[in-house]
Amino acid sequence: MTDTPRPGLTGSSLDRADHLREDPDAIAALRGDLRSRLLVLDGLDPMLTDDFTLQWGSLADAPAGADLALLGFLDGKPRFVALGEAPSGFGRSARMMQALDLLPYEEASTFAAARSLVDWHNRHSFCAQCGSTTEIIRAGWARQCPSCSAQHFPRTDPVVIMLAEHDGRVLLGRQSRFPPRFYSALAGFVEVGESVEEAVARELKEEAGLTVSNVRYVASQPWPFPSSLMIACVAAARDDAVTLDTNELEAAMWCSRAEVASALADDPDAPFRAPNHYAIAHTLLRWWVDQHVGAFA
Amino acid sequence: MTDTPRPGLTGSSLDRADHLREDPDAIAALRGDLRSRLLVLDGLDPMLTDDFTLQWGSLADAPAGADLALLGFLDGKPRFVALGEAPSGFGRSARMMQALDLLPYEEASTFAAARSLVDWHNRHSFCAQCGSTTEIIRAGWARQCPSCSAQHFPRTDPVVIMLAEHDGRVLLGRQSRFPPRFYSALAGFVEVGESVEEAVARELKEEAGLTVSNVRYVASQPWPFPSSLMIACVAAARDDAVTLDTNELEAAMWCSRAEVASALADDPDAPFRAPNHYAIAHTLLRWWVDQHVGAFA
Repeated sequence: MTDTPRPGLTGSSLDRADHLREDPDAIAALRGDLRSRLLVLDGLDPMLTDDFTLQWGSLADAPAGADLALLGFLDGKPRFVALGEAPSGFGRSARMMQALDLLPYEEASTFAAARSLVDWHNRHSFCAQCGSTTEIIRAGWARQCPSCSAQHFPRTDPVVIMLAEHDGRVLLGRQSRFPPRFYSALAGFVEVGESVEEAVARELKEEAGLTVSNVRYVASQPWPFPSSLMIACVAAARDDAVTLDTNELEAAMWCSRAEVASALADDPDAPFRAPNHYAIAHTLLRWWVDQHVGAFA
Repeated sequence: MTDTPRPGLTGSSLDRADHLREDPDAIAALRGDLRSRLLVLDGLDPMLTDDFTLQWGSLADAPAGADLALLGFLDGKPRFVALGEAPSGFGRSARMMQALDLLPYEEASTFAAARSLVDWHNRHSFCAQCGSTTEIIRAGWARQCPSCSAQHFPRTDPVVIMLAEHDGRVLLGRQSRFPPRFYSALAGFVEVGESVEEAVARELKEEAGLTVSNVRYVASQPWPFPSSLMIACVAAARDDAVTLDTNELEAAMWCSRAEVASALADDPDAPFRAPNHYAIAHTLLRWWVDQHVGAFA
């Protein structure tokens, strides 16, 4: 088996400095520190430097009265992001997708943390337990209700994304909203009361009618739309008879290693267009192509 | 490497019947079906049969006016749970812990789904986006806000739980709230913007001052207190010099395979008391003991 691959949106050298989040004096000192940097966002999109890295400004650039969250330290400098931008985090703008294409993975990883955090605050100003307006605590990493005292933490939603393998081929699917020719690995949210392995089996049964065994973990990645933890797996399918859930998928097809390799190489004659390099579906397909034939199923 | 182990609280044969959740007519028919069963809970605790399995009643046993969530199908019978019980899901009663000790894993797994779902509704009656009272939709698997239309889904919080390994020993820690002599694997929530592997490295650095590499996934488990997805890993520590975060841990120690094996065997001379059999920390330690020496670090 080859080494664990490195997916996009990972590798940030951000030191999150968790121990400072509970220390208001330390946070106040960092907010007065001229070395502190503020992540430059336009809405929820990053702005890039000439070198296609994240753009940082000084804390004075923050909108008047904006709360700041401490992202942590990078290159020894305190890093903040302003809370309170308005747009919803579900959508992905064209320039956002361009940024993910251009940014080094470690930069995209830092951005992912900031985007998910800002967006979570935007959509969680009220206490889910009692309906009161909540207050920001822990240097931007939680909210607390002044009425019922409930604490609320940013959501991280685990999602399984997986290849079912049978007889040297893997199943790929497409949703109707995908660009033309685009196929990817099947995916779905992990529900309460199930393991990663059980979620993989359930989703492949629901979406494609497949019965699988031998579910194996491959890699993981944060995905800030709005705040998923992508968990990539492979599983052995009992047979290749697919029953498609047409509410979820428009089409599905089994592809060989040669076919997947040609798609990853952007070959115009490939049977499909592959996921973008920074998506873990790409990492998963690349990993599968690099396996010895029969290593898994 | 040995096969993927089977942790506690997994293996339910519940068919969640996701496609029915959006079909109010089908749900209404199931609610009128005499074969439908209601999970018996006292607060958030399960009640057991003579055979130490989950106790099920008829839908007529539900409190008057209670909403019912469709858990799915077991043994061909529709299975529901009543929503609206009051207590908070963070605590664990003594009889709850006894139930987890007694229940077969597949029964505990079904219960875990029900408990997390009921508890999530208890603590999420209001819209986090606008503060309005929300309504139950999708047969109990989501809530929707009548004011701003936001949909809210049950939380599943990924948690990494891990063994740092160095020179044939693994690091175990204890919190001050643990019972006497009890040690377990270190653990922490995955934050937005990080992968499983990065969360493992961050937590081991924060809690024990360790620098690790070669993080490997071992197994996963749902943990319904209130709704975690436990992701068990091992990692290779650069050295064994521990700097303890005393806010998180009261003590930590490196243990050999022989020491861990004696604790798992409940040997009174073992250097610590091991986690309960149904906790994934137990699975992880058992798995590690069964590895060939040097397979990992």
